[in-house]
Amino acid sequence: MTRTTIGVIGTGRIGRMHTLNLVSSVPDAFVKTVASRSADEAWAAELGIPVCTKNTGELFGDPDIEAVVIALPSGLHAEAIRSAAAAGKHVFCEKPVGFSSAAIAPALDAVRAAGVQLQVGFNRRFDPGLCKLQAAVHSGEVGELHSLRVVNRDPRAPSPEFARGSGGMFLDFTIHDFDTLRFLSGSEIVEIYAAGAALVDPEIASAGDIDTAVISARLANGVLCVIDNSRQTGYGYDQRFEAFGSKGNLVVGNLRPTSVEASLATGVFTDAPCPSFVERYKEAFVAELRDFVRCVRAGSDVAVTGEDALAAVEAALAAKTSMVENRPVLLASTESAVPEGAVS
Amino acid sequence: MTRTTIGVIGTGRIGRMHTLNLVSSVPDAFVKTVASRSADEAWAAELGIPVCTKNTGELFGDPDIEAVVIALPSGLHAEAIRSAAAAGKHVFCEKPVGFSSAAIAPALDAVRAAGVQLQVGFNRRFDPGLCKLQAAVHSGEVGELHSLRVVNRDPRAPSPEFARGSGGMFLDFTIHDFDTLRFLSGSEIVEIYAAGAALVDPEIASAGDIDTAVISARLANGVLCVIDNSRQTGYGYDQRFEAFGSKGNLVVGNLRPTSVEASLATGVFTDAPCPSFVERYKEAFVAELRDFVRCVRAGSDVAVTGEDALAAVEAALAAKTSMVENRPVLLASTESAVPEGAVS
Amino acid sequence: MTRTTIGVIGTGRIGRMHTLNLVSSVPDAFVKTVASRSADEAWAAELGIPVCTKNTGELFGDPDIEAVVIALPSGLHAEAIRSAAAAGKHVFCEKPVGFSSAAIAPALDAVRAAGVQLQVGFNRRFDPGLCKLQAAVHSGEVGELHSLRVVNRDPRAPSPEFARGSGGMFLDFTIHDFDTLRFLSGSEIVEIYAAGAALVDPEIASAGDIDTAVISARLANGVLCVIDNSRQTGYGYDQRFEAFGSKGNLVVGNLRPTSVEASLATGVFTDAPCPSFVERYKEAFVAELRDFVRCVRAGSDVAVTGEDALAAVEAALAAKTSMVENRPVLLASTESAVPEGAVS
Amino acid sequence: MTRTTIGVIGTGRIGRMHTLNLVSSVPDAFVKTVASRSADEAWAAELGIPVCTKNTGELFGDPDIEAVVIALPSGLHAEAIRSAAAAGKHVFCEKPVGFSSAAIAPALDAVRAAGVQLQVGFNRRFDPGLCKLQAAVHSGEVGELHSLRVVNRDPRAPSPEFARGSGGMFLDFTIHDFDTLRFLSGSEIVEIYAAGAALVDPEIASAGDIDTAVISARLANGVLCVIDNSRQTGYGYDQRFEAFGSKGNLVVGNLRPTSVEASLATGVFTDAPCPSFVERYKEAFVAELRDFVRCVRAGSDVAVTGEDALAAVEAALAAKTSMVENRPVLLASTESAVPEGAVS
Repeated sequence: MTRTTIGVIGTGRIGRMHTLNLVSSVPDAFVKTVASRSADEAWAAELGIPVCTKNTGELFGDPDIEAVVIALPSGLHAEAIRSAAAAGKHVFCEKPVGFSSAAIAPALDAVRAAGVQLQVGFNRRFDPGLCKLQAAVHSGEVGELHSLRVVNRDPRAPSPEFARGSGGMFLDFTIHDFDTLRFLSGSEIVEIYAAGAALVDPEIASAGDIDTAVISARLANGVLCVIDNSRQTGYGYDQRFEAFGSKGNLVVGNLRPTSVEASLATGVFTDAPCPSFVERYKEAFVAELRDFVRCVRAGSDVAVTGEDALAAVEAALAAKTSMVENRPVLLASTESAVPEGAVS
Repeated sequence: MTRTTIGVIGTGRIGRMHTLNLVSSVPDAFVKTVASRSADEAWAAELGIPVCTKNTGELFGDPDIEAVVIALPSGLHAEAIRSAAAAGKHVFCEKPVGFSSAAIAPALDAVRAAGVQLQVGFNRRFDPGLCKLQAAVHSGEVGELHSLRVVNRDPRAPSPEFARGSGGMFLDFTIHDFDTLRFLSGSEIVEIYAAGAALVDPEIASAGDIDTAVISARLANGVLCVIDNSRQTGYGYDQRFEAFGSKGNLVVGNLRPTSVEASLATGVFTDAPCPSFVERYKEAFVAELRDFVRCVRAGSDVAVTGEDALAAVEAALAAKTSMVENRPVLLASTESAVPEGAVS
Repeated sequence: MTRTTIGVIGTGRIGRMHTLNLVSSVPDAFVKTVASRSADEAWAAELGIPVCTKNTGELFGDPDIEAVVIALPSGLHAEAIRSAAAAGKHVFCEKPVGFSSAAIAPALDAVRAAGVQLQVGFNRRFDPGLCKLQAAVHSGEVGELHSLRVVNRDPRAPSPEFARGSGGMFLDFTIHDFDTLRFLSGSEIVEIYAAGAALVDPEIASAGDIDTAVISARLANGVLCVIDNSRQTGYGYDQRFEAFGSKGNLVVGNLRPTSVEASLATGVFTDAPCPSFVERYKEAFVAELRDFVRCVRAGSDVAVTGEDALAAVEAALAAKTSMVENRPVLLASTESAVPEGAVS
Repeated sequence: MTRTTIGVIGTGRIGRMHTLNLVSSVPDAFVKTVASRSADEAWAAELGIPVCTKNTGELFGDPDIEAVVIALPSGLHAEAIRSAAAAGKHVFCEKPVGFSSAAIAPALDAVRAAGVQLQVGFNRRFDPGLCKLQAAVHSGEVGELHSLRVVNRDPRAPSPEFARGSGGMFLDFTIHDFDTLRFLSGSEIVEIYAAGAALVDPEIASAGDIDTAVISARLANGVLCVIDNSRQTGYGYDQRFEAFGSKGNLVVGNLRPTSVEASLATGVFTDAPCPSFVERYKEAFVAELRDFVRCVRAGSDVAVTGEDALAAVEAALAAKTSMVENRPVLLASTESAVPEGAVS
């Protein structure tokens, strides 16, 4: 069994998580190189990774490396994809791929030109609960789909500094929810109305961002959607999804570390939801990398493409416009798709 | 113990429910008269109600009768309130009180002029779960309130005929949700964006109405809200409420007839939610009448006033405008209340 | 509509509860008289009860009174039944009817001789959840029944004084569980093994009683059962029931005052179970009286008979013998019913 | 990083599971050899295991191998432990270690003589939920412990052939529950009363075994326990645990593959419990091997010892005697430990 040789670019929180997953849970993969500003050699050595460099060029130039995992600050993603594709590497890239269609287009062009694979890190598409929900929608168990709801709330607000470089909450955080609507429905977002505010932390407002939002969306197939976001719950990572149709309603509820229920004088307690995305989507993060390696090895199509990344970014940008101009915004690429005779 | 003598006007589904509740569960009340087009004497006799008439004038003219319960088709409510007040009767009236501010104003004027009480049938305000949620918001258990969510879905769509005379879904059905936002937050609705469609039944569209909606609302205190409506679930009466704030999230979940859980080869089953509002708000329907009678007897202020009715109607009308014109709509009475510096 | 005239004997906690239920929720009943040592006239007047006496003879001698509700200390039940039957009154009596078969037999004889009805207060037989469970067992939804489990735990231990006069925990408390096994299974208890201890309160042991027990029982149809008792939870009234069979497992879970779920930094909380039997079996307490009055009026058989009371008392006594002698005990009346070839 | 070299003996269902876990999830371990009657070379090669043999002697003779994992039919465990210890290998062995104290003693002697480690496969001790429950008991969150309950029900009954060689249900299956009582309480079982029957499959009775049981146990610290067993649920692997004490009640509930809840016209469905021990204790099976390898490498004491294995076997044998002789049985080793003055 030869393994697929991989390089990881970026070793922040999520880069390290992907690296650990590759090493411990993707038997078909071999991480030869990690490239990052920190170049933490001790950490790499502990994981049995031979090469640790600050020089991504070294990584791109290594003919052994067949594929790269990119987990840089979002603003650097598109350029890194372009370089990787130019070097003939398959690419797994974290979201968002970029902050505008203009920024993303050259990366997607480079991928197409090089004939490599590009998979985007919309990890929820590999979550067993969401997969079951998606299957229920597509098999007709839900009947004709009428509405979708996403509750996405982070445990703790990011720093204003992070917010500044993140592209804003819609691009950094809600982008998962836009992809989820597309994934669950198999349809496109045609119109968005977004209301947002900085209710958690006024510093977030000073950084030009928000931390709380309610977003309405209408899909090409007429389905009405709502997204409910907060950057800070205090009680863990709140992730709930709901698909309602003519035959019923399916909900994906929160996961909890254990099933312990304590009945005490003060009430009945259960565990809080998983503390962060790391625990909540543990299986999904492994599954997305396994599937990426499987596709690279088999030459088959990846499950989450650059086009998916682009569609989610466009939705995020439309949401931003909607919020700033306080009006519903039609998505450019789908303007003609607005259903005839729809009542707003 | 003298009981308070009451007359009931209208004996449709909800009129009969109120009558039965008065007879069997409000010991301080005595139903002397029911007035309705059907004048079902056998039913009245069975409940021990002495007078059954088609003539509401007879009821208004009876000096024994201190208070009336009005449960007519919504379009007749305001006029009935006016007549009752003119006759010096205290009034409990079902929602909506009317289809416009102009229609409601004379009724409220008559109530004020006569110095009688007017309580409106926003039954949820007497539900133990919603009361607990409201108390948690007001006591600070939720922290600073950031968002509210209401899921309100009826078990079975009304007939297109009913839809035609109902004032439309927002006035007939969502009106409870607008009142719930006000009740839970203690704040006013300042802006609404509504998207709706007839996804359950195309005949509803032909009747000029909708059966599915997602509504965003912003409150005077900056709280972001979302309402999720459907006229037909197929699985019962879906009633869920959520208050999210800086200290956590409180949810009122669905009630079920029993707590039986069955683990079978095909999965784990529990009872579906209560089949209709009658079972779901059983305690609340009794409690609102008990409280009305208590206030009438004590001369104290009722918990749900004509002004509450008016505010909910105005929100429903704003939602309708928003949907038709596909734009966010500021509520006239609160226009000046839009928070300074709010984003969208 | 003439109502059935009723006298209540005993106005302790449960006697007052039954009286209130009759007055407010059994429209077919009229409580004319309450007889008790306290003779609380103010309370009776408030409920509109004309006669309040210390003299039960006055009640038995009143020809208007058709039926009596007996809620005395348990040791006085059998004699009161005898007197009531002798006076030609139908009887609803709280459990236990007596502390031995010998004590109960004359009461049942008197009932038979007088041709009156006797219903015993095994309220659980009227609980919607337990009725659903029983129906599932009898309809075959559970398949062939293999085992039953009862968790019965009181919120707060009784005083040692109460324990002394109560007949002991098995007769006073577990007796409901023995009846529940018979009700759910439709079979008889043939053998019991009981282990008990005073773990909550050593004073209970001084009073010759226990407060904690685990009891195994075998039924005539081969079903294996377990009862889990405690006199004190600290977290409310813990009532859970489970029927396991070849097709699956059905559980009746605890009921809670509201469905509110709070997600806070310290965990996810729900309401504790109902605080006491009053709230937990609210519907059942009303339903058993309604059914009793219905049977009295219709002359039809009551749902819980003197024979049911006797069977539960015999089980309680067998459990006591088992615990004291530390051995499994066969029930006298069912000795011949032990299934052939059973392993222990 | 040098890894610990391991040999696996026995490649039935559970042997293969352990092997896969070692290869994919215990980075510190290297499986050099698998020894089994089947000697499935293709399977071994696929997992990257160099040596596949029918000859356990070859494995014991290999100086590279530091530790072995034994997953043979239960009757062969003790002898294999003895051989492994004699060869100086550390041992991880599946339960039960043997069918009698006499059979087990020589193995434990050999382990002691060789100075190697022996860890027994009571996997539940590594389950996050049970660990949380145990911690709550030991930290005093439950208060003074009064009772313990274990529900342990297998999804599908074993074949009568398997039953014949398994030592009987108590030794093969309930043995986990006896260990769980000891683990949760930190106390010893002093008395057992067991009632059992073959209700699932009469062929099990022909094989001299049972498939359904209710077992009472009393611990040295006075705690009352109950175990509820079935060999076949039809709805998955039912694993529930409950610790009740003076401060409250803690329950470990079933785990489910996803958190999806479907509200349909026929009721509200959730996933059935995990289908088998493989999925339910997935994390625990990995954790016990990781901990074993950690202890071997560090020379520290293992968490589940040969003495724990022996205690559980003695409880299982006492349960068998109790069932056959239909009487409570004191455990020999603890006879003197029966608390003074205990009521049965």
